[in-house]
Amino acid sequence: MRLTAYTDYTLRTLMYLAVNVERGVTIGAIAHTYRISETHLTKIVHQLGVAGDIRTIRGRNGGILLGKPADDINLGSVVRRTEPDMDMVACFADPDRCAIGGACVLQSALHQALAAFLAVLDRYTLADLVAPRQRLAALLGIDPAGLAGPDTAGQMP
Amino acid sequence: MRLTAYTDYTLRTLMYLAVNVERGVTIGAIAHTYRISETHLTKIVHQLGVAGDIRTIRGRNGGILLGKPADDINLGSVVRRTEPDMDMVACFADPDRCAIGGACVLQSALHQALAAFLAVLDRYTLADLVAPRQRLAALLGIDPAGLAGPDTAGQMP
Repeated sequence: MRLTAYTDYTLRTLMYLAVNVERGVTIGAIAHTYRISETHLTKIVHQLGVAGDIRTIRGRNGGILLGKPADDINLGSVVRRTEPDMDMVACFADPDRCAIGGACVLQSALHQALAAFLAVLDRYTLADLVAPRQRLAALLGIDPAGLAGPDTAGQMP
Repeated sequence: MRLTAYTDYTLRTLMYLAVNVERGVTIGAIAHTYRISETHLTKIVHQLGVAGDIRTIRGRNGGILLGKPADDINLGSVVRRTEPDMDMVACFADPDRCAIGGACVLQSALHQALAAFLAVLDRYTLADLVAPRQRLAALLGIDPAGLAGPDTAGQMP
């Protein structure tokens, strides 16, 4: 059971931008830091822009920035949006596909389990994810002079 | 986010056997009922035998049967055993893979969410999954004369 690389890279991009709040950053810099494909990341950044989670500043010193405060970006909402398929098993999308579709307790159990999974993610915002701000800045190679706030590690939901 | 077809077919095979308790059934009959590959199912049945969840009766009237009572087979345990990969993201298996591996709240959030998912499944046994026994027998084309108990639909955890 796995989230897609698309969701993984989306969340890591948002975390980068939530630490690097003072100036625009290029897609190339994020791709380089995480050692992931710039082509893949370009698509992700486009969709994050469409969703309003990030904005782009044009020009020589431009780049991408968060489009809203980090505590307005909910983890569960992002995962629901980026996962193409929350159907735990094939019959979620097509109940007629399985002989026992009409009397299946398994389907109900898996629906409950998925709801419990998402309910945990719903308790987190992007701000929670970057609470260890100083340590994240150091790991990401971001100049700490531009950091917006103190390291608040430990203040998790 | 999906469980593998391997897990899905494993669970459906166990449900078939938990309804069809009085006599052995062939892999071919289960594959035909669910319209799934007999080759795929043969591997699954082998692993269910290794785990002790089913047993095989040899001979002309032989076939496979549950190897233990349905309420001794836990849904969470089966899923933990059959899912090859419970790493929600790549860094679960290799924390050094990601630049922020040392300060990642996301990893912790996903671990909590996965635990919540599995905790729901841990509340179910195979007996719960086949509580609507009469309806399942009808849908699976199993002769109700051999059914062990009444339909107990609605008595879920």
